[in-house]
Amino acid sequence: MSHAAPARPVRADQVTRWDWDTDVAIVGFGASGACAAIEAAEAGAKVMLLEAGAGSGGASAWSGGEIYFGGGTEVQKSAGFNDTAEALESYLMMAGGPDADAEKVRLYARNSVAHFEWIKAQGVPYKGNYLPGKIIEPADDGTLIWSGSEEAWPFYETSSPAPRGHVIQFMGWGGGRKLVDILEARVRAMGVDIRVNAYVENLIADAEGAVVGLVVRIDNEQKYLRSKKGVVLCTGGFCMNSEMLKRYTPEVLRCNSPIGERDDGSGIMMGMAVGADAIHMDEFFVTCPWIIPESFAKGVFVNSRGNRFINEDCYHGRVSRAILDQPGDKAYLLLDSEIFAQPLDLARISVAGTGDTWEEVEQELGMPEGTLSSTMRTYNRYAVEGEDPVFRKRLPWLKPLNVAPYAAVELNVRSSFFSFFTLGGLRTKSTGEVLDRAGERIPGLFAAGRAACGLPRWGAGYSSGMSLADCTFFGRLAGRAAAGAASN
Amino acid sequence: MSHAAPARPVRADQVTRWDWDTDVAIVGFGASGACAAIEAAEAGAKVMLLEAGAGSGGASAWSGGEIYFGGGTEVQKSAGFNDTAEALESYLMMAGGPDADAEKVRLYARNSVAHFEWIKAQGVPYKGNYLPGKIIEPADDGTLIWSGSEEAWPFYETSSPAPRGHVIQFMGWGGGRKLVDILEARVRAMGVDIRVNAYVENLIADAEGAVVGLVVRIDNEQKYLRSKKGVVLCTGGFCMNSEMLKRYTPEVLRCNSPIGERDDGSGIMMGMAVGADAIHMDEFFVTCPWIIPESFAKGVFVNSRGNRFINEDCYHGRVSRAILDQPGDKAYLLLDSEIFAQPLDLARISVAGTGDTWEEVEQELGMPEGTLSSTMRTYNRYAVEGEDPVFRKRLPWLKPLNVAPYAAVELNVRSSFFSFFTLGGLRTKSTGEVLDRAGERIPGLFAAGRAACGLPRWGAGYSSGMSLADCTFFGRLAGRAAAGAASN
Repeated sequence: MSHAAPARPVRADQVTRWDWDTDVAIVGFGASGACAAIEAAEAGAKVMLLEAGAGSGGASAWSGGEIYFGGGTEVQKSAGFNDTAEALESYLMMAGGPDADAEKVRLYARNSVAHFEWIKAQGVPYKGNYLPGKIIEPADDGTLIWSGSEEAWPFYETSSPAPRGHVIQFMGWGGGRKLVDILEARVRAMGVDIRVNAYVENLIADAEGAVVGLVVRIDNEQKYLRSKKGVVLCTGGFCMNSEMLKRYTPEVLRCNSPIGERDDGSGIMMGMAVGADAIHMDEFFVTCPWIIPESFAKGVFVNSRGNRFINEDCYHGRVSRAILDQPGDKAYLLLDSEIFAQPLDLARISVAGTGDTWEEVEQELGMPEGTLSSTMRTYNRYAVEGEDPVFRKRLPWLKPLNVAPYAAVELNVRSSFFSFFTLGGLRTKSTGEVLDRAGERIPGLFAAGRAACGLPRWGAGYSSGMSLADCTFFGRLAGRAAAGAASN
Repeated sequence: MSHAAPARPVRADQVTRWDWDTDVAIVGFGASGACAAIEAAEAGAKVMLLEAGAGSGGASAWSGGEIYFGGGTEVQKSAGFNDTAEALESYLMMAGGPDADAEKVRLYARNSVAHFEWIKAQGVPYKGNYLPGKIIEPADDGTLIWSGSEEAWPFYETSSPAPRGHVIQFMGWGGGRKLVDILEARVRAMGVDIRVNAYVENLIADAEGAVVGLVVRIDNEQKYLRSKKGVVLCTGGFCMNSEMLKRYTPEVLRCNSPIGERDDGSGIMMGMAVGADAIHMDEFFVTCPWIIPESFAKGVFVNSRGNRFINEDCYHGRVSRAILDQPGDKAYLLLDSEIFAQPLDLARISVAGTGDTWEEVEQELGMPEGTLSSTMRTYNRYAVEGEDPVFRKRLPWLKPLNVAPYAAVELNVRSSFFSFFTLGGLRTKSTGEVLDRAGERIPGLFAAGRAACGLPRWGAGYSSGMSLADCTFFGRLAGRAAAGAASN
C-alpha cells in the first residue's frame, strides 16, 4: 500500500493552523460518499468531499450499477411480483448470517421502496422491465433481475422470493460508472466543495476523543481541515491492501481479482485509531462468474473428492464462497452435452476432463473409483423424478446429466477469475455513527459503505446489489446525521 | 460480562495519585502471567502480578497440563523418536495456517528443548515414559503422547512426525491445576507482589501513547498502579464474553462449553484501546472428545448428506473444527460391531441410527438412498486393501466397517460437549511487544498467552499442548522484555 495506516489520530492541540473549515467532511467519492454529501448538503450543511483518486468512482464505478431494492417497488409490481417489506427483511436477515444487524435490516426493508424513489429522483434512470432467468447483469438496458439466492434453498423456505436486483438503464455491463456520474452531478449541483487527488492521511481528535477534523495530503502538502459537525468515512473496504488481508482475511489471499479502485482500508484503520470497533473483518464476498452461460446452473458442482457441496441454483457468489472452502483450491462443474457450452475466456476456467460415462470422467480427473460416479448416479436417479433430496436444487435448474459425452470444467481458486471485496468494517449504528468497543459513539465520526460493516456482512449470504443498497441508503443516513451535528 | 470493556485508556495527566509503584505489572495469573513474572523478577525487576480471580489458574488450570515440546527432548529420545527443530518448525508452520507467524515458530522450534528444561527446572515433574496410541490425556501419570495431527494427512507429507505432547506427571486428567500451582510457588519464591481479586479496569497511557500504568479495582476501590518498565497482559482470550464472540467469532456461539476461567477478553480490549492491532479474531479451537474410546478413530465421519469430510485419524480438534462447517450443525460417526462402544456420557453424543446394512442406517437417519450407503461402499472397497484414496486416512485407523450390525453416533454442535477457546488476539512480536496497526510497538505494553495471537492461530491446525507451549515460552520472553525496559 502506498500509505502507512495511522495507528493514532493527530491531536487537535498539536494542530497549529486550520487551512480549511467545513461542517461536514466526507472522505471518499464512491456511491456512499456521494449520497452522504447530497443529504448533508440538503440538510443545510457546508460540505467538503475529499477523494484520493482523480475523480469520483470508487468500487461503485466498477460495479454493474445494480441496487437491491424490494418490498414492492413499482418495477416489481408491474412485473407481477408481490414483494413485501417483511419478505425483504427476512431475506436480508438470512443473508446477514449469524450476526445480521437486525436494526439496519429492518430500517432498510421498511424504507427500500422510498429509497428507490429517492435514487430515481437523483436522476438515475430505470427502463422498468423485468428480465427472467439467471443472469449476472443484463446484456441490454433492462431493469429487474433475480440477483440473489431468493428462490434457492434454504432461502425460499423462510422468505417469500422476489427478484430485487434493480439495474440502472445502461446498455450492457458496467452501469456503475453511470450511476456514480449521475450522483456526482447531483453532488455538484448542491454546491459541495469537491477536492480530488486529496488523500486523507489521518483523523484529528480532541482531548476527549471526538473527531474534529482531518489531515489531507493534496498537491504534496498537508492541509488541516476542521469539520465542525462531523467526518463521514466512505473509503471502502480493504480488498486492495494485502497486509490487511493477510492479518484479517487470509483465506481470500488466494484470489486474484479485487473489486476496488483504491480500497486500501485507510478509513477502517483511521477509525480504529480513534477507538472504533471493527467487526467481521474475516468476511468477504467472492465470485467466479461461472453461470455464464446460464445453462451452467443446470450442471453439478463437485469438489476434488467427487462430492457435491451446494445447491447449484443459488447465487453465484454463494456458490463461489463454498468453492473457497473445498480442498485443493478447486471445484469441478459437471456438464452433459445438452447444456455444454464453452466457458467465457474471462472466467479463466477450462475443461479438465471428459468422458462418455461419468466413470470415465472420474478416471480422467484422477478421482478414486466410486466417488464422482456414485455422486452422479444418485443425482441422476433423483433428478429424473424432479427431486434433489440432498441439496434441494429446484426446477428448472434441476435436470439429469445423462446426455453423453460429459465434461468437467475446473474452477481454480488461484487461477480462475475469482473477484472479491471485503465485508468487515467499522461498527456503526444505522445513522452511520461509529461505535467504539464499549458500544459508545465516537463524537464527530460517521462511516458508510464498505468502510462500515453493514447489511452485507456474511460472504455466504451476499446477493448482487446488496452492497450498493447499503452504500446508498446508509450513506444518505450518515450524511444526514453528520449534518445534524451531535445528533441522537 | 461483568465489566464493560474500556474503549480508551485513562490519560496519565488525569491521574491525581499513584497508589502503587512497580517496574513490571503483569495482568493475569495463568501460565503466561506466571512465566512472565518469574522471568521479569529473575531479570531484577520489581514485579506486581494482578489477578481478577481469587487465586492463580486461568484457563491453564482447566487444561491437562500438557505442553507441545519437540525438536528432540530427552523424553522423545528415550522413546526412540528422532525429532528435530526443523520437523517441529515445519509442523508448526502448517498448524499456524495461512498466516502462521514464521518468526515465533522458528524461535520456538529452536528453543523448545531448552524451554522443556526450563519448565522442569521450575519443579514441573515428568515421569518420562511414552504412551503409544491415540489418547486425549493419559489416564495415568505418563508423559509423552501423540497430541496432534502429526501422523495424519496432510501433515506427515511435509513434516516428519513425532509425538510432542509432554504431560505433567499427574494421575489422571486435569494436570493443568498442578502445573500452575508449581509455577505459582516459583513466582512466590521470587518475591513477586501478588494481588488477587484485583480486576484491571484499564490501562493508563501518557500523551505519547506509551502505557505507564494500570487502573485496578480491588476491595471495591480504584487503585492507580504506575509501571515504570512495562505492563504484560496475560488475561487470556474472550471465550467467555458472548458480546465479543458475537462480533468477532459468531460461528462458535453455537457451542456450549468455553474453556476458560474468566476469559472475558479484557486484555485484548484494553490493548486495542491504546491502538493495538488484534488479528485473526475469528479463529478458535474447538473439540468434542469423540475419540473416546480410541477405537472411534477407526470409524467414519459423514455429514447429514452422507459425505465424508475429513480423514478421521487426525487430531480431534481438527475433526471437530471441520464438523462445525458441516450443514445442519451435526455429523455422524459410523461404527461397526467390531469397534462399537458406548460413548462417554460426558460427550453428550448418542446413537442416532442402527442397521444390519449401511442402507438401513442411511434410511434410519432419513438420508436419501444412495448417499451414505455409496460412501460406505467406496470406503470399504478401498479399506480392505488398506487404502483411503479420498481422504488418505492411514493404518492402523483405517479398517473396513463391515461387521454388522452398524451404528451411527450423532455429534451435535449445539448439544454435544463441544468445548472451545479463542485464538485471535493482540498482534505481538516474539518479545511480547504489542504492535499497533502500523506495525509499530506500543511503548510499555506487552502481551502473552491467548490475549495475544501466537503460535496457535488457526482452528484447523490446533494440537493439544500448543497453547500452553505458547503461553509459557512467550510469557517468559514477554516478562524478560518488559523487565528490560524500553528493550529492542
